[in-house]
Amino acid sequence: MDKMEKVYFDHNATTRVDDEVLDAMMPYFQNKFGNPSSGHSLGIEGRQAINQARKQVADSIGVQPSQVVFTSGGSEANNLFIQGATGNLKTSRIIVSAIEHPCVLYPAKELTQNTNEKLDLRQLMVDETGRVIMNDVDKALSEKPPSIVSVMLANNETGVIQEVATIAEKARKLNALIHTDAIQAFGKIPVSFSSLNVHAMTISSHKIYGPKGAAALIIDKELILKPQILGGGHENGLRSGTENVPAIVGFGKACELSKIRIEKTTTHVTKLRTYLEKKLVEMDAIIFGMHANRLPNTCYFALQNIEGETLVTSLERAGFAVASGAACSSATPGKSHVLEAMGVEPTLARCAVRISLGSNNTLEQVNEFLKALTTIVKELKRISSVIA
Amino acid sequence: MDKMEKVYFDHNATTRVDDEVLDAMMPYFQNKFGNPSSGHSLGIEGRQAINQARKQVADSIGVQPSQVVFTSGGSEANNLFIQGATGNLKTSRIIVSAIEHPCVLYPAKELTQNTNEKLDLRQLMVDETGRVIMNDVDKALSEKPPSIVSVMLANNETGVIQEVATIAEKARKLNALIHTDAIQAFGKIPVSFSSLNVHAMTISSHKIYGPKGAAALIIDKELILKPQILGGGHENGLRSGTENVPAIVGFGKACELSKIRIEKTTTHVTKLRTYLEKKLVEMDAIIFGMHANRLPNTCYFALQNIEGETLVTSLERAGFAVASGAACSSATPGKSHVLEAMGVEPTLARCAVRISLGSNNTLEQVNEFLKALTTIVKELKRISSVIA
Repeated sequence: MDKMEKVYFDHNATTRVDDEVLDAMMPYFQNKFGNPSSGHSLGIEGRQAINQARKQVADSIGVQPSQVVFTSGGSEANNLFIQGATGNLKTSRIIVSAIEHPCVLYPAKELTQNTNEKLDLRQLMVDETGRVIMNDVDKALSEKPPSIVSVMLANNETGVIQEVATIAEKARKLNALIHTDAIQAFGKIPVSFSSLNVHAMTISSHKIYGPKGAAALIIDKELILKPQILGGGHENGLRSGTENVPAIVGFGKACELSKIRIEKTTTHVTKLRTYLEKKLVEMDAIIFGMHANRLPNTCYFALQNIEGETLVTSLERAGFAVASGAACSSATPGKSHVLEAMGVEPTLARCAVRISLGSNNTLEQVNEFLKALTTIVKELKRISSVIA
Repeated sequence: MDKMEKVYFDHNATTRVDDEVLDAMMPYFQNKFGNPSSGHSLGIEGRQAINQARKQVADSIGVQPSQVVFTSGGSEANNLFIQGATGNLKTSRIIVSAIEHPCVLYPAKELTQNTNEKLDLRQLMVDETGRVIMNDVDKALSEKPPSIVSVMLANNETGVIQEVATIAEKARKLNALIHTDAIQAFGKIPVSFSSLNVHAMTISSHKIYGPKGAAALIIDKELILKPQILGGGHENGLRSGTENVPAIVGFGKACELSKIRIEKTTTHVTKLRTYLEKKLVEMDAIIFGMHANRLPNTCYFALQNIEGETLVTSLERAGFAVASGAACSSATPGKSHVLEAMGVEPTLARCAVRISLGSNNTLEQVNEFLKALTTIVKELKRISSVIA
């Protein structure tokens, strides 16, 4: 058992760096290690590497390289939009969906609570499948325009995909700025900046088999943001600091590979998830957002009366890495605000377990998982019946 | 010539990642790739790696691990202090030296220009050797306390070391907060947080043979800052975002190695620089800050009537990577605000070239450099006499 390779079913939390990505990064630690701001050839090499990565990122979502603002991660990029747009525009209202990641929700809360009494935060309601309710979007926009609107493309816990383009159209009609946190969607479904019709979008490297430490805020050419990190004027003045060259190079490569592989990956994980969920339903599992348009890799389920944490721990012992909530969303995990917004009963929400599949997962692994799960459930029920 | 290994004399801009550092990092890209916030064993491995790195960083400057706040880089850490302390304290004055890095100077300027009319920025004068003038510190503090004071430990261009502990004592007497940007000093001279008597200090990985993408703000246990990046609550709520585990692990290792090697490195580069400067003075070079207490590795010089940019380009062709200004300080380099603050004539400032030595540089390289420099200077003088 100790020697068994762990089966990784937690790709929405983070991913293993792809071999080709790591190969692309390696020269930039020791050979091409120059500071991209240096005028000598080692610096120029670094600058060229960043330019290439910027093009790879841009190509993967159909924008110009000049629209890519590299940051150290998705949280920084989301904060840059929320705080940067608010800081620049003196808007009166920030609208976010109730199921946004804390790195969208909290800066919005902070700004509206502390900075300006005239600025309010409006959270968009979601229905029981986890979709933002369109009538509520109309209502929120009409109450107090103009606004900043941020709605994630796909939720990290449920995988439910939001109708961002439709929301963007509504927002633009009322001269509001629209941003989407596409961190979870990017690499799992095709993402096009222009089709979404947004002013800004966040994507991240470590969710798409790239390294941690790189992400991007993609911006409309007309969008003006107030930078958060000031200094040497890097990233066109929007994000100062010596560029993390290896991570940016890896991010670029991961974007390139993602674009090539996405169809194959989608087909593969869809097949695995369909099978997995069929079996889970046979075990009387409840699958959150099951009938909504979802990311093909994400399965968020609950088995009545079996605590998520307990299940995760037991599965861990059996060799499976799964999540009880949104791992990446918090250093101090609590209950799921996503399930709460969906109106899921707290007793059921506590049973939630997330499986997020990746390109390297196999049908065999899914079958092993189902076998282990069956055994664990049987054992947990036996114990609880003994106690009862 | 093409095949010749470039001689790297630009260690104040960035450094090559040390072999042992890279070895320490490697497992965290593909094997131990978990998100440190995940509850399963891959996540726990990541969390443990960060804890170890936090201890290594803390040990290298004599603080407790809980005082280390990891950031994505030095610019972010400096911004976190300047903006975070100002945001929290409602101070009336920010005091910085006139020779601070832009990532201290610009956030201070931004805050005092745009946020609050009652908040002003006071820049401390330096003398002709590049040292902050103590009388001006007294004056600045007495004019309008309480304040936030930020004075760098060593300047990135000149290498001149400031009397931070003395300034800290003065600041504390007037209940001001004192921060030091120790990015350039750390790893080149011994740095102790408690001896400097500061409330906060910035150190960075890529200046000490660690990777880009990791740095730390070291804080007094009592210091309360307003975070810039909000979200999952990482770094004790002061810096949200999935941790860049490999970079943080590398930073930790680099700190550990730096502590072990610093004496040897200092002795080595001191010997090289003493020799280099003796020869440069024989060539009638002016060495900036020569008689001030300086970092042992930094030599900032000018040859009258020879443009720094021209010299850097010629030296580049001859196989030497040196800097004409402060590479890392700006994506769009201009004139040196450091030399300007020192009262150096603009015509001489334009001739400035910075050599910053590292542990792997050799006496042979210095001799080759001097030979190349002599040839270049002779040639440039010949051309200019022909033109004249």
